[in-house]
Amino acid sequence: VISLDRLKRKSYDMAVIGAGPAGISAALNGVLRKKNVVLIDRAGAMKKVGKAGCINNYPGLPGITGLDLNRAFLDHLREFDIEVEVKTAYKILRVKNRFVIYTKGGAGDVFEAGSVILCPGVVLEKKIEGEEELVGRGVSYCVTCDGLVYQGKNVVVISDFEDGEEEAKVLAKDYKCTVTYVPGYKVGPLPGVNVLDERPVEIKMAGDSADERDNVDKIDEMEVKFEGCSMTAAGVFIIRKNRSPASILPGIKTENGYVSVGAKMETNIKGAFAAGDCTGPPFQIAKAVGQGQAAALFAVEYLKEVLN
Amino acid sequence: VISLDRLKRKSYDMAVIGAGPAGISAALNGVLRKKNVVLIDRAGAMKKVGKAGCINNYPGLPGITGLDLNRAFLDHLREFDIEVEVKTAYKILRVKNRFVIYTKGGAGDVFEAGSVILCPGVVLEKKIEGEEELVGRGVSYCVTCDGLVYQGKNVVVISDFEDGEEEAKVLAKDYKCTVTYVPGYKVGPLPGVNVLDERPVEIKMAGDSADERDNVDKIDEMEVKFEGCSMTAAGVFIIRKNRSPASILPGIKTENGYVSVGAKMETNIKGAFAAGDCTGPPFQIAKAVGQGQAAALFAVEYLKEVLN
Repeated sequence: VISLDRLKRKSYDMAVIGAGPAGISAALNGVLRKKNVVLIDRAGAMKKVGKAGCINNYPGLPGITGLDLNRAFLDHLREFDIEVEVKTAYKILRVKNRFVIYTKGGAGDVFEAGSVILCPGVVLEKKIEGEEELVGRGVSYCVTCDGLVYQGKNVVVISDFEDGEEEAKVLAKDYKCTVTYVPGYKVGPLPGVNVLDERPVEIKMAGDSADERDNVDKIDEMEVKFEGCSMTAAGVFIIRKNRSPASILPGIKTENGYVSVGAKMETNIKGAFAAGDCTGPPFQIAKAVGQGQAAALFAVEYLKEVLN
Repeated sequence: VISLDRLKRKSYDMAVIGAGPAGISAALNGVLRKKNVVLIDRAGAMKKVGKAGCINNYPGLPGITGLDLNRAFLDHLREFDIEVEVKTAYKILRVKNRFVIYTKGGAGDVFEAGSVILCPGVVLEKKIEGEEELVGRGVSYCVTCDGLVYQGKNVVVISDFEDGEEEAKVLAKDYKCTVTYVPGYKVGPLPGVNVLDERPVEIKMAGDSADERDNVDKIDEMEVKFEGCSMTAAGVFIIRKNRSPASILPGIKTENGYVSVGAKMETNIKGAFAAGDCTGPPFQIAKAVGQGQAAALFAVEYLKEVLN
């Protein structure tokens, strides 16, 4: 039964990724407009707001503490029977007019929705030089998605937390890769995986010029420079706690790392909207709540058009 | 003393026009950033929200009534000692790097500010055909601003409320105009003013083609068509309770009647921002509050740039 349940795709009108102020506002507005909404968050709702001290600029609730505002938002969700799916959405693909959302954690791993609203917050981690340009051309954020491409080859896995170990093991065992694991934290030896205690500095194509690059052997075409050494590989996997919008939804347009949105909170991908901190500063609760609402209402409008 | 006080310009960092959710949010954020803010509203704060029944999509306050949310917003203003100037801002002019805000009602008619945030809400009245194209070319919203241009000439004053009577009298008495007053409500005879009980349908330049228009006598170059008759005049004054942003701040770019804003809530006029319903749908409290916040914070950024 469990495995059947795991395979069953759950179908929704609207998938909201991230349950901070923007995502909660989007989910509420979607539900109030009678849409079937799934709200997905890696860590559960309102993790960041709870840490704030005194909040003075959320109109109607002067001087509220982060903890109390947190509680008020969660109560509001409960009032409308909205539950947060505590899962990591690691990849969203647009298939025909719909979105398929791959998640990790618990059962029901795959969701399907007619529209998607990205509210993942800001990614605070610094990117590695060369990383962004090479996504899909040697750099990947997802073993489940791209592991097969590198079967039997040399790969580097750079990870800032323990989740990367599992990914490294899968690459070594299931895909027969030769894996070098570069943890951004302390870790003991891992079976079947080389652990390299170094800090990545740059990722680039092996070979110095474009000409050379075209002729380079397809195996080990990447070069990873570390502070003290360098290494070639066929592919580089980067595993971070916070995934950037572009790593979740391939092809989404960003500027300085922020999702580019229009006046309707729409992204360059039809049916995909974004709200809150991921769209850029100011990083504020009221602004996030307002954008989440607008995104949801314009998504409702979009769904109407698609269904007609 | 009173007349001196009336002439004294009051100087601010930020002028917020309209004290609905957007304007209140803007004013709060401006004050929290230590800016000297004036909040101006014709009717006092939160007149529209108070009329709402049950509001379910303002996160943190599920199921609150319009009246209670109204009260919460007003309490929030009081908490930060922000008072609403109950005045009508009828004209804003950009003079060098600053804005001069002309108001009616009470003393202290003229305000000056380094930035302005327009939150006037939506104008629900239907425009008269031809009205918008002819603003500044025969159509005016403000006797104090443009009365002198029409001195001694024939003018039509179209007004949907009593304030227009005063304007008509000023035109007749001070500017020696021959005034036809077209009220959108019941009114008795007015001394020195012809009252016409008709409904305006269209305003156009007198003469049928562009050629003819160029040759038409400068006196009485406008034609106002009513349901049952038509009339020529040198100028047409339109007096409405709700003034459109373009009639308050000349030159501001609008689309379908809504103020065009960028990602920073900026308008086409440097230092002028807009937020809330005036920027277009959705007409929602959370969205207005979020935009008001963003507008204020970007205005603070703008002020920093201007001062450096």
